[in-house]
Amino acid sequence: MEKNIPYKIYLSEEEMPKYWYNVKAHMKSKHAPFINPATQKPCSKDDLKSVFCDECVEQELNDTDELIEIPQGIRDFYKMFRPSPLVRAYFLEKLLDTPARIYYKFEGNNTSGSHKLNSAAAQAYYAKKQGLKSITTETGAGQWGTALAMAAAFYGLNLDVYMVKVSAMQKPHRREVIRTYGANVITSPSETTNAGRKILAEFPETGGSLGCAISEAVEKASVTPSCRYVLGSVLDHVLLHQTVIGQECKTAMDKYGITPDVIIGCCGGGSNFGGLIAPFMGERLEGKNSVEFVGVEPASCPSLTRGKFAYDFCDAAKTTPLAKMYTLGCGFMPSPNHAGGLRYHGMSPIVSQLFHDGCIKAVAVEQKSVFEAAVMFAKCEGILPAPESSHAIRAAVDEALKCRETGEKKTILFGLTGTGYFDMSAYQKYNDGVMGDNIPSEADLQKGFETIPKCKVNGSEI
Amino acid sequence: MEKNIPYKIYLSEEEMPKYWYNVKAHMKSKHAPFINPATQKPCSKDDLKSVFCDECVEQELNDTDELIEIPQGIRDFYKMFRPSPLVRAYFLEKLLDTPARIYYKFEGNNTSGSHKLNSAAAQAYYAKKQGLKSITTETGAGQWGTALAMAAAFYGLNLDVYMVKVSAMQKPHRREVIRTYGANVITSPSETTNAGRKILAEFPETGGSLGCAISEAVEKASVTPSCRYVLGSVLDHVLLHQTVIGQECKTAMDKYGITPDVIIGCCGGGSNFGGLIAPFMGERLEGKNSVEFVGVEPASCPSLTRGKFAYDFCDAAKTTPLAKMYTLGCGFMPSPNHAGGLRYHGMSPIVSQLFHDGCIKAVAVEQKSVFEAAVMFAKCEGILPAPESSHAIRAAVDEALKCRETGEKKTILFGLTGTGYFDMSAYQKYNDGVMGDNIPSEADLQKGFETIPKCKVNGSEI
Repeated sequence: MEKNIPYKIYLSEEEMPKYWYNVKAHMKSKHAPFINPATQKPCSKDDLKSVFCDECVEQELNDTDELIEIPQGIRDFYKMFRPSPLVRAYFLEKLLDTPARIYYKFEGNNTSGSHKLNSAAAQAYYAKKQGLKSITTETGAGQWGTALAMAAAFYGLNLDVYMVKVSAMQKPHRREVIRTYGANVITSPSETTNAGRKILAEFPETGGSLGCAISEAVEKASVTPSCRYVLGSVLDHVLLHQTVIGQECKTAMDKYGITPDVIIGCCGGGSNFGGLIAPFMGERLEGKNSVEFVGVEPASCPSLTRGKFAYDFCDAAKTTPLAKMYTLGCGFMPSPNHAGGLRYHGMSPIVSQLFHDGCIKAVAVEQKSVFEAAVMFAKCEGILPAPESSHAIRAAVDEALKCRETGEKKTILFGLTGTGYFDMSAYQKYNDGVMGDNIPSEADLQKGFETIPKCKVNGSEI
Repeated sequence: MEKNIPYKIYLSEEEMPKYWYNVKAHMKSKHAPFINPATQKPCSKDDLKSVFCDECVEQELNDTDELIEIPQGIRDFYKMFRPSPLVRAYFLEKLLDTPARIYYKFEGNNTSGSHKLNSAAAQAYYAKKQGLKSITTETGAGQWGTALAMAAAFYGLNLDVYMVKVSAMQKPHRREVIRTYGANVITSPSETTNAGRKILAEFPETGGSLGCAISEAVEKASVTPSCRYVLGSVLDHVLLHQTVIGQECKTAMDKYGITPDVIIGCCGGGSNFGGLIAPFMGERLEGKNSVEFVGVEPASCPSLTRGKFAYDFCDAAKTTPLAKMYTLGCGFMPSPNHAGGLRYHGMSPIVSQLFHDGCIKAVAVEQKSVFEAAVMFAKCEGILPAPESSHAIRAAVDEALKCRETGEKKTILFGLTGTGYFDMSAYQKYNDGVMGDNIPSEADLQKGFETIPKCKVNGSEI
């Protein structure tokens, strides 16, 4: 093992970040504004504040301040589960017989099992500070719902979680964790909202969808006094909160003189990847480093590698503002895969803009090869990774194998976003040899693209 | 928060223990030897070496050396999931409004979800070093099976895990984690052993028992070339490996000048509790401190608080050596409860002897109050605890509430052995208000006591 660099780096309390990193301050081309689909005009602050907490809206629209202070009340909560370790993957390197140095930042050591708690903590804190009594959200795979339930319990807020019905049935234990934290779990579609009742009337047997659950949660927030809606990815303020990951990485690597050549993260809505790379990207945009950034998505839901850069709705029910992003179309139905957190039709506007500007590479990886990497990693590094996180493992392994061919001693950093303890039915399919890759055909993509709305802003089609 | 003492204490790599702590070196009354039930004489080294790995037997019988070196090969594995954090429970203290200072040592941040990996790593290492090809074990709740599967994968050993059938059916996800790590999971009773076939012939519909699974695993090891059996608790060498917990605690507390007044741990087989208290107990036995030690057991399986101090079999099938310990009788059937890891009829001979000599207090706590404490802890400290670990939480909370009454500023340390992610059906019962306490009647206990064997050693009944 390398001298003077610990195998696992934990920052001390004093070294922990006091600021989130707003990468937008360094982006020459800012991403296009949200559009209100009703007026076809950029969303006003008030449009957004009717849905989201005030402070989150301020952060959403802030593209000038590089550093945004993390309030003490959030830093206190962060202390419960942070710092997360930055680990040198010695055992994986040895197994791969690679000259590359592999590091990973592990966000799974908390009860929600993932990085989601970073933004849940912040959003619940701001809701409480604003004097709200309740928040609502939706959850698919369940990591976000768990994280928000933990944060709501900590700060003393009521929480309604609309959980996609099929997911609640397949993952009753996830549902139970959320309930244990005192949140109200409503399987979606439900009878509690107009959106839910409408879907149920039309499709009484439906297992629900994330799009429908979002519509229900937004509607519930809008009709409940002292309540706002909270989202777990995609938006700029969520990505901002996730920069605590990148900030910790940067501090730890700077401290020990480690310079990453490649940074790799899995991409669903984009917030963990964006949060991991932010401070490194900020420096690169200023010409201070030449790090390569790689976003990894499932071949079954390839928004960056096969999607279009266009204005689209953030939800399938077409109720949200329009965002300019890489999208497969808000009506795209990703084929079933086991990385629920990556089954999203769009991509964070910040990540989309950076990709469009050539600052980020994207790769799509196939499910079976992802699980192959996951099991290899579990056996040699002792952590059973979430299917989502395993996309980054796959890409990091491929990069390290390339280094074995070329002899390059690259330093690879990847984000290990969470654990797979609630995903064992996926592992079972892999172990039993009955897992597929489910890559969409060109026709499937075409069907999705047809659901991207024609959109005019200030009179001109965009 | 207290100045200069971090909220979470992580030792640095250099500070991590290089030695396990053999508390027996300080015990004036050593515990009675194992008895071979066939010869009614103390077990010889060779008796034990036919079942267990050579080095583990050496450690089992060593009652003179205070410090036993942790080989580098095990310390390398420990680095993957250790050090574990020593956490100040500020949020719990605040909620309880107690003047007590509460610390907990959290062993759940690894894929096995518990402290079990500490001994699994050691035992698999020694099996590999001895040149063995395979090991066998049994698992009930599944934490031990998972831990050993991880260790076997890491060191490259074949592993057969006999998993109690009803447990494998109730916890298919636990089973799948073990499989993912490459171990062979056999539901017990099975057709692979004489013991299993005999039970199946008599009770074809049985859901199995830990006793039967032990018998199968021991038999399988005895008929397999280059194979030994591995046990996850009770024995002295297992307790020894778990002293890495106490060693880390002691180093951390000494470093910051923290002196515990009370140390609390849950007691099933006794290895985690014994491992946590060992270095503190060693000092107390030498008159160097006056720490109070509290073992916490479920009221449904109260071996210390209501059992007998007698020679008994370690398994229900009466195949193992006899051990002098607190026992409810090897045929005692604990009523169903949700702390599978605490449903054992006996208690570690070391812990039993210390209790018999008045060095340890024991309390029994009831299931509903345990889950009440668990949910309170989950909400304020952000960790969803295992039902087993929650017994220690309950006792620590009670101690802190006593301090609120008396105004005492006691420093309480408790062992938080693991997470409850695979125990959500138990939480569901609690959340739904359908959980019972299942305390055995005097008649139930009497039935158990009748299964304690009459035992003569060197001619005299004991």
